Amino acid sequence: MLEDIDKNYKDSSLKQKYNIIKGNRYIMEEAIVPISKALKLPMDDVVDIFVKIYDSASLYESHAYVEQAKMGCLGRRVDIDLGLCWIADFFGLISKNDADLIRKKVVEDTIIRKKPYNESLEEGRALAVKILKGEE
Amino acid sequence: MLEDIDKNYKDSSLKQKYNIIKGNRYIMEEAIVPISKALKLPMDDVVDIFVKIYDSASLYESHAYVEQAKMGCLGRRVDIDLGLCWIADFFGLISKNDADLIRKKVVEDTIIRKKPYNESLEEGRALAVKILKGEE
Repeated sequence: MLEDIDKNYKDSSLKQKYNIIKGNRYIMEEAIVPISKALKLPMDDVVDIFVKIYDSASLYESHAYVEQAKMGCLGRRVDIDLGLCWIADFFGLISKNDADLIRKKVVEDTIIRKKPYNESLEEGRALAVKILKGEE
Repeated sequence: MLEDIDKNYKDSSLKQKYNIIKGNRYIMEEAIVPISKALKLPMDDVVDIFVKIYDSASLYESHAYVEQAKMGCLGRRVDIDLGLCWIADFFGLISKNDADLIRKKVVEDTIIRKKPYNESLEEGRALAVKILKGEE
């Protein structure tokens, strides 16, 4: 009997957690989808992992984390795509400060100003080249 | 007259620096080529930038930096390609320690054990999925 109550409670808590995630388009698009793509895992498996690890309260609060992750992980992609990792961090051909400005510009153009990533990236690339050549 | 000497000295120093870079296959392949690709700049332009910024002594010593950059920047690519940025750094679905192990394994398999990057990445991906699902 107690076991049944416990099981019912767990089932309804699990169901609630699934509903929180699946009902939140932002979490689905900006967290579940990119993780599913990177790990080549079905989206349902990624949802399962979130449900297993997070409680409902944390899931309700996850909007802020998703926003941070979106900005932060895009910034790291810019580092790779523009070679900032090489030219700033390891070879010091441009300053870390200049690299921060370029990265921030591409991330903000993409996420806040809604430019396509490749377009933002091309502008970041042009800026990096100008700085490298001492024209900026 | 003094101007001529100065100019000759500069020319020969420049030539020496070009020769150091162009004669070093490792620097060409592991620094000039990836930067040239990332910035979509002709390789000669990238060589020009190195020659402008570095003196000969630093160029002779750059082998160590190139090695570090190669490992470091590949690690950052792994973070993006496997979504470690998301699952470890922002969502805490796996520990930073586990993410470090996965990243290190992929980088070492690729650079030290000379496995193709995509193959190393697939193994890293399988490991990440196992850890996420609590099977490891």
